[in-house]
Amino acid sequence: LLSFPLITLTTDFGEASPYVAAMKGAILGINADARLVDLTHKIPPQDVRQAAYYLLNSIPFFPSSCIHVVVVDPGVGTGRSILLADWGRHQLLAPDNGCWTPLCRACGQPERVIRLTESRYWRQAVSPTFHGRDIFAPVAGWLSRGLEPTLLGPETTDWLRLDLPSPRKDADGWHGEVLFIDDFGNLITNIPGEALRQCKDRSVQVSVGDHQLTRRVRAYADAPRGSEVLLISSSDLLEIAVVDGNAAARLGCQVGSPVKMEEL
Amino acid sequence: LLSFPLITLTTDFGEASPYVAAMKGAILGINADARLVDLTHKIPPQDVRQAAYYLLNSIPFFPSSCIHVVVVDPGVGTGRSILLADWGRHQLLAPDNGCWTPLCRACGQPERVIRLTESRYWRQAVSPTFHGRDIFAPVAGWLSRGLEPTLLGPETTDWLRLDLPSPRKDADGWHGEVLFIDDFGNLITNIPGEALRQCKDRSVQVSVGDHQLTRRVRAYADAPRGSEVLLISSSDLLEIAVVDGNAAARLGCQVGSPVKMEEL
Amino acid sequence: LLSFPLITLTTDFGEASPYVAAMKGAILGINADARLVDLTHKIPPQDVRQAAYYLLNSIPFFPSSCIHVVVVDPGVGTGRSILLADWGRHQLLAPDNGCWTPLCRACGQPERVIRLTESRYWRQAVSPTFHGRDIFAPVAGWLSRGLEPTLLGPETTDWLRLDLPSPRKDADGWHGEVLFIDDFGNLITNIPGEALRQCKDRSVQVSVGDHQLTRRVRAYADAPRGSEVLLISSSDLLEIAVVDGNAAARLGCQVGSPVKMEEL
Repeated sequence: LLSFPLITLTTDFGEASPYVAAMKGAILGINADARLVDLTHKIPPQDVRQAAYYLLNSIPFFPSSCIHVVVVDPGVGTGRSILLADWGRHQLLAPDNGCWTPLCRACGQPERVIRLTESRYWRQAVSPTFHGRDIFAPVAGWLSRGLEPTLLGPETTDWLRLDLPSPRKDADGWHGEVLFIDDFGNLITNIPGEALRQCKDRSVQVSVGDHQLTRRVRAYADAPRGSEVLLISSSDLLEIAVVDGNAAARLGCQVGSPVKMEEL
Repeated sequence: LLSFPLITLTTDFGEASPYVAAMKGAILGINADARLVDLTHKIPPQDVRQAAYYLLNSIPFFPSSCIHVVVVDPGVGTGRSILLADWGRHQLLAPDNGCWTPLCRACGQPERVIRLTESRYWRQAVSPTFHGRDIFAPVAGWLSRGLEPTLLGPETTDWLRLDLPSPRKDADGWHGEVLFIDDFGNLITNIPGEALRQCKDRSVQVSVGDHQLTRRVRAYADAPRGSEVLLISSSDLLEIAVVDGNAAARLGCQVGSPVKMEEL
Repeated sequence: LLSFPLITLTTDFGEASPYVAAMKGAILGINADARLVDLTHKIPPQDVRQAAYYLLNSIPFFPSSCIHVVVVDPGVGTGRSILLADWGRHQLLAPDNGCWTPLCRACGQPERVIRLTESRYWRQAVSPTFHGRDIFAPVAGWLSRGLEPTLLGPETTDWLRLDLPSPRKDADGWHGEVLFIDDFGNLITNIPGEALRQCKDRSVQVSVGDHQLTRRVRAYADAPRGSEVLLISSSDLLEIAVVDGNAAARLGCQVGSPVKMEEL
């Protein structure tokens, strides 16, 4: 147990409303020694799949002993459960909507998953629209004080799995889609980086929207400003970028836009 | 006194400019042990009323021993005072513009209010446009080191009160307005949640802009995606939402838009 | 050495992508005791000059013993170096693109500058597009644990210098430009505050775009709401503002717009 335990926060609350602040207060109200680490509050509203991508590409870099709190929760106040996924080395609280399950590709399966039922560890009056403040935050506070997870509710083996969309490979090449668009406008696709590496120095064409790209680079600045380039992302996926520019805007793409990669 | 004291920050500075960073540096320059907690820097520029709503819905969840620094300060550099509101258990620094007074509904009146006058606890050269960095930050730093508040200036009983707009009830029903719009586009009105609860299972109609809503739910996902719904907010006020959508955009509402609630 | 060392983060990564979170994880993975302080993640993409302005106006307010991590890095993955500028009292990691050199005006020259070459302190597999996560973050983690800087690579005296644009003074007056626009829309120019002070109570006219301004104030609220005013910024530069309004929008200005100041 860290003397000043780390609790990370990932939500779709945005930054204008007092929701994030109320959660921080509620955590510190249980454990004033907690060190809070904002991951993001800019997950697109209710977008469980974008949350899944986000978690997969950030949580694995954190050390042991962190408690990760994830509130992207369109089902708040309904019968959906709140889960504690416990890897022993680290713990994650999330609604049972699958947002955390792709993460298991990187972190392995948790040692156990607990369904939160013990309301004694919650705020007294639970708002049906704000479990972040009234359940997630106080439970994270108690966990950071070393509370035994089994006190929070029963173990479960039944939870929603979410899969990020998989690419398809056929004789023509790879058929995937845009998985994520970062703040630079770079397009991260779901086509594996390995697919590009295997092409070695043979010519490759990637089609997205009505654009075709063929220029492969290792790093952005390997091509002149404004070039449309293909590269392998830091998450080891095919990435489409415009050097010092915004590929999403230039190519008119969105999350979900089809991407095809073929050898020429 | 916490060994690593908590100081929260609430401003309208936004995130592109170096103002927040300069404040953080100035606090840590006085007390490098402080733990800084960002509440928000996205209060709309100079919007004292939105700051008041924000504080009322976040500060009460924080524990004792926190120092809250609030810099939404259109009067910076003029004769307006800077106040330290001291509840004993926690302290708040804010310009004397009323932004903190609605908070007293939740926290009670402070034990004392001090007007900052002792410039020895300020930065040497005080910029007339950046008291956040030059007065608020160093004073917060000194308070977090345990400085006796009375050293900062004289006690005062004279400060600006700000009231959030109150709803009116007449034979027709409740007449209120939109108090706050969160990042999801949910409309938080100033009509009390209790007004809706008292209608029990009788039909209710809420009018906002040229829209009428009648569907009452407990939680967002209790109605299909895209439904316009009425519910009780996590702050116990009448809330108008579009399930998985943006009510402000759909209904064309702004803060201050009139809202009427009547039984049918 | 602080027992919970301070590491600040300044990037152009924005807040939607998992890049900032991955860096935080990677730092804490090396030193779980680090206290992370977000400066901003909203530097305009690849804008080294805006980063320079930002650093110059924030870093000098921080105390000794801080480690500042700056990742605005259009050249990531190319031959550009990563530098550790070591002032003894504080340290800064940045790409060798000059973003940190204007800061020396305020902080003096660093005692030494080290070029990072020792990959044993990096993540095992370094992505050519994400040195923030794979080099900057782990190196900051090691430094915060007290690693001797000379172990990170050779000292160097050869690095890129960047100058913020300088104003010109001639018989007509001062010719400068807009250096920075803050979130309020205030225009910070590169004309020194001293130039305005030296005019004392003589009339001054500032031209920007096709607008002329003559009203001088000390603080924003010294003129009525909506007034176009001249004042001395908190960074001691000529500032152009609209009281409780957005000068950049009103005057149609951008970073780089020419500004002329003359006595009448």
